[in-house]
Amino acid sequence: MSQIPSDALDFPDSDRKFLEPHLPPRNGEIKSPNLPFTTVTFAMSLDASLAISPGVRTVLSGPQSKAMTHYLRSRHDAILIGVGTALADDPGLNCRIEGVGGYGGESLQGQPRPIIIDPSARWEFTEEAKILKLVNEGRGRAPYIVTGKHSPPVKQKEILEEHGGKYLTMDITTTEAGAHRFDWTVLLERLKKEGLNSVMIEGGAVIINSLLDPSSQALIDSVIITIAPTWLGRGGVVVSPERRYDSGGNSIPVSRLSDVKWYPFGEDVVLCGKIKH
Amino acid sequence: MSQIPSDALDFPDSDRKFLEPHLPPRNGEIKSPNLPFTTVTFAMSLDASLAISPGVRTVLSGPQSKAMTHYLRSRHDAILIGVGTALADDPGLNCRIEGVGGYGGESLQGQPRPIIIDPSARWEFTEEAKILKLVNEGRGRAPYIVTGKHSPPVKQKEILEEHGGKYLTMDITTTEAGAHRFDWTVLLERLKKEGLNSVMIEGGAVIINSLLDPSSQALIDSVIITIAPTWLGRGGVVVSPERRYDSGGNSIPVSRLSDVKWYPFGEDVVLCGKIKH
Repeated sequence: MSQIPSDALDFPDSDRKFLEPHLPPRNGEIKSPNLPFTTVTFAMSLDASLAISPGVRTVLSGPQSKAMTHYLRSRHDAILIGVGTALADDPGLNCRIEGVGGYGGESLQGQPRPIIIDPSARWEFTEEAKILKLVNEGRGRAPYIVTGKHSPPVKQKEILEEHGGKYLTMDITTTEAGAHRFDWTVLLERLKKEGLNSVMIEGGAVIINSLLDPSSQALIDSVIITIAPTWLGRGGVVVSPERRYDSGGNSIPVSRLSDVKWYPFGEDVVLCGKIKH
Repeated sequence: MSQIPSDALDFPDSDRKFLEPHLPPRNGEIKSPNLPFTTVTFAMSLDASLAISPGVRTVLSGPQSKAMTHYLRSRHDAILIGVGTALADDPGLNCRIEGVGGYGGESLQGQPRPIIIDPSARWEFTEEAKILKLVNEGRGRAPYIVTGKHSPPVKQKEILEEHGGKYLTMDITTTEAGAHRFDWTVLLERLKKEGLNSVMIEGGAVIINSLLDPSSQALIDSVIITIAPTWLGRGGVVVSPERRYDSGGNSIPVSRLSDVKWYPFGEDVVLCGKIKH
């Protein structure tokens, strides 16, 4: 065993148990030949906000929830975020659970592959990005950056490849309003082809709202949401998918969970479920 | 015992237990000489909506939650809603728990006094309003309607008083944008003077967001929220108070709950807590 860094996190077995039925199967069983097991997970306030303002990192949930997130990362081949979150947080996107690679374990075992959705390749990272420093320290994997640009910036491409990461180019259209649209099925199939059998989608709100859309929500295998007992107030970064209408033009609920379990967890609650089809 | 109507609801003792610490004291102990014990309670979606669109009644939670609401009503002297909810729902605003007055019990014992906030007295109810029919059937109390109008409509005043209700006039200012502002302390003190020692505030979102404002949230003794595992989609009737800023002009969370308990309840969860001061 290598030395265990002081920022390693412990997530007790007693807590791991309740998550088990909501996680990718341990026995290597494959969900589908073409698609990875896809988990959506995030922490939100009572008013459904991930953060108090765009680009502001907001600590919502307690230390137990943080350890849970890292445990969940250890159970997925990949973790996925949008570029907005990368720009706001300079995130490490590794797993710090005691026992995984770099935290007491061998090589990079248990370290997920970070996937960053960056349609216009606007993330101008340097070698100083936290995520790349962790790679150099043997505590995380280099990211795959999904972009719509056929020629991503040369400098970033070079840095990325030096660290073992890469750009994945796919079709992404940009609406007049500047919103990016891509086909979640195509993206997830691409990740599967990269050998990633499970993906945990962590945020931000743009990514999550897009995946919760009726056109793509069937791709979700598991939903794990932490709710903190706080109101951030109007104007936060809200998880709420686009409205859905029936054939008569009336609004109907976008989505409902089935197989629902609620686990009180410190001051927070953890909601686990599946999208009802 | 009178005959028990077929729409009576049962709320088992086993479920009553978890609510007990969050309810007005049973021993008649008085919280304050001037203020009633004030509970805020509502059911919302994962995207913090009470309803899919303004004025549309949306069934969010299961039958257990409905029975819980009626049990909570039996434990408060008054229940309070905004006129928007009255107009949208034609609500009965009585308590249908088996054993209260009109549902197997004597007289009106256990029936709360409905309080409707109607600043400009725009609710043009007739004798056909559900709430008044229930009064005639001995299954509920007549409402007190809180208004800013010094001369409420004569016809409604007459009907109301015939049924044992009344208008309560208090200072309510109207902003240029048409929003009504009143002092929650003055209102609650007024209810207390009417002999109401506990008030359960049920909605809608305008009323709840107003009470959750930093200027009035200290008046809340207990918060009981049911969360249903569904997303209604953007544009719903959202509970999210106005933003709050620190002295430097930065957004800060509006409110956090303390003494938090989460109770899984069928497919829903019930969150009980107090406002942290």
